[in-house]
Amino acid sequence: MVKETIILGIDPGTTIMGFGLIKVINKKMEFIQLNELNLKKYDDHYVKLKLIFERTIELIETHHPDEIAIEAPFYGKNVQSMLKLGRAQGVAMAAGLSREIPITEYLPKKIKMAITGNGNASKEQVAKMLQSMLGLKTLPKNLDATDGLAAAVCHFYNMGKSTIGKSYSGWDAFVKQNEKRVKK
Amino acid sequence: MVKETIILGIDPGTTIMGFGLIKVINKKMEFIQLNELNLKKYDDHYVKLKLIFERTIELIETHHPDEIAIEAPFYGKNVQSMLKLGRAQGVAMAAGLSREIPITEYLPKKIKMAITGNGNASKEQVAKMLQSMLGLKTLPKNLDATDGLAAAVCHFYNMGKSTIGKSYSGWDAFVKQNEKRVKK
Repeated sequence: MVKETIILGIDPGTTIMGFGLIKVINKKMEFIQLNELNLKKYDDHYVKLKLIFERTIELIETHHPDEIAIEAPFYGKNVQSMLKLGRAQGVAMAAGLSREIPITEYLPKKIKMAITGNGNASKEQVAKMLQSMLGLKTLPKNLDATDGLAAAVCHFYNMGKSTIGKSYSGWDAFVKQNEKRVKK
Repeated sequence: MVKETIILGIDPGTTIMGFGLIKVINKKMEFIQLNELNLKKYDDHYVKLKLIFERTIELIETHHPDEIAIEAPFYGKNVQSMLKLGRAQGVAMAAGLSREIPITEYLPKKIKMAITGNGNASKEQVAKMLQSMLGLKTLPKNLDATDGLAAAVCHFYNMGKSTIGKSYSGWDAFVKQNEKRVKK
């Protein structure tokens, strides 16, 4: 039987959630989907959170990903914007946790590095590389949408390398992997 | 039939999650439970998020609350700590959203004000008032545990006052309540 792994990549921002799906068959990537959830038109922060959570659950139930990769900056200028970003990340993570799907986080620089070889690459450079790697006919007008796909592709390159990104795949697996870190 | 409302109050911190449950019958409060989930012993942030999410789901499934009240500061000193706090809030909120339970957030000052009449009251003052209001025989050693209960009691005082706190109770209800705010 051919081993097939579906990776859902998410960039859960507070105004745009970019997401992309790839299928990995015999260590080769196949493009499934690339899209964005535009949250700009909603004023209410709670509505945004609800929509991020629901869309992530919907993507999980439609595509049954085996792995989730999340683009997650750990820094920002503003305390309030970081609280909002943290909530957006939290609800997307909760969607994955609720379906017991392993989550791996990547810093934006690591994603750019994995795809272009340059941690400071522009959105355009990342998008062009994704287009070439996955044979995409067109790119979306709004390149924010490609950030989720980029996270999925970054995860493909890092699968099995447990030192890159932080992985979480259920309490039992965590305890097995981190016996020294879990104080009983 | 007697109208009974169960309120789950949560203070989702990154080291301690305090939670409490009250039952409201005929506009009177009855104490159900008060406890904390101590997350200090876990180093890993993802394990903490998973445990917050799971405990919140467990509380929902055990007690079937009709409403959830969350203590949520909107400010903090440190960008990184706010990101972590945002994630903790996000997973707790996602647990409520996933079960379609209305969530209301309260600032810490509003909670203190609702319970003691003083927005700058100490933890001890809030705990003593809760003890007296609800006829608690003892108080927990760690008063952080009372913060969740305090949020639940604050929500009891504010039920029906839609201007205090921010309420969210499903997309349809939101649209009905905020037709001007939702751009279609």
